Amino acid sequence: MTELEIAIAPMHRLCKKAGADRVSEAAAKELAKTLEEIGVKIAKEALDYAVHSGRKTIKSEDIEIATRKTAGKLSFDYF
Amino acid sequence: MTELEIAIAPMHRLCKKAGADRVSEAAAKELAKTLEEIGVKIAKEALDYAVHSGRKTIKSEDIEIATRKTAGKLSFDYF
Repeated sequence: MTELEIAIAPMHRLCKKAGADRVSEAAAKELAKTLEEIGVKIAKEALDYAVHSGRKTIKSEDIEIATRKTAGKLSFDYF
Repeated sequence: MTELEIAIAPMHRLCKKAGADRVSEAAAKELAKTLEEIGVKIAKEALDYAVHSGRKTIKSEDIEIATRKTAGKLSFDYF
């Protein structure tokens, strides 16, 4: 039993945006699971940056820098 | 106006899982936006692998290999 925070239905829509005609239910679940893991990782990084800045609240700029430092390697250029 | 597929509320929960006490609304929105971009990128990779395998349907294993090849560099080891 998957205990996901991220909903499955939006995952199908993300895949359609990516150009897919058909997406299995298991694939959508797997994508949700993956994005949750990535999300927690980015959030952990963002928390580090917030604390580094003397704050207890994660702000948008913490997420932005965490994304750049972490997922920036994923090369979004061809979006 | 953000037109996000991923809901904002689960993003707060992901940040709590990451150990954050407080998360701004803007931060949660930014995280959702980031995960959508990453999600579409992984889905595009997965589609490539599905087509490479002679299929039109993205299956769970396509997402899995796309994640390994793309986000694998994010080093989930310290989760």
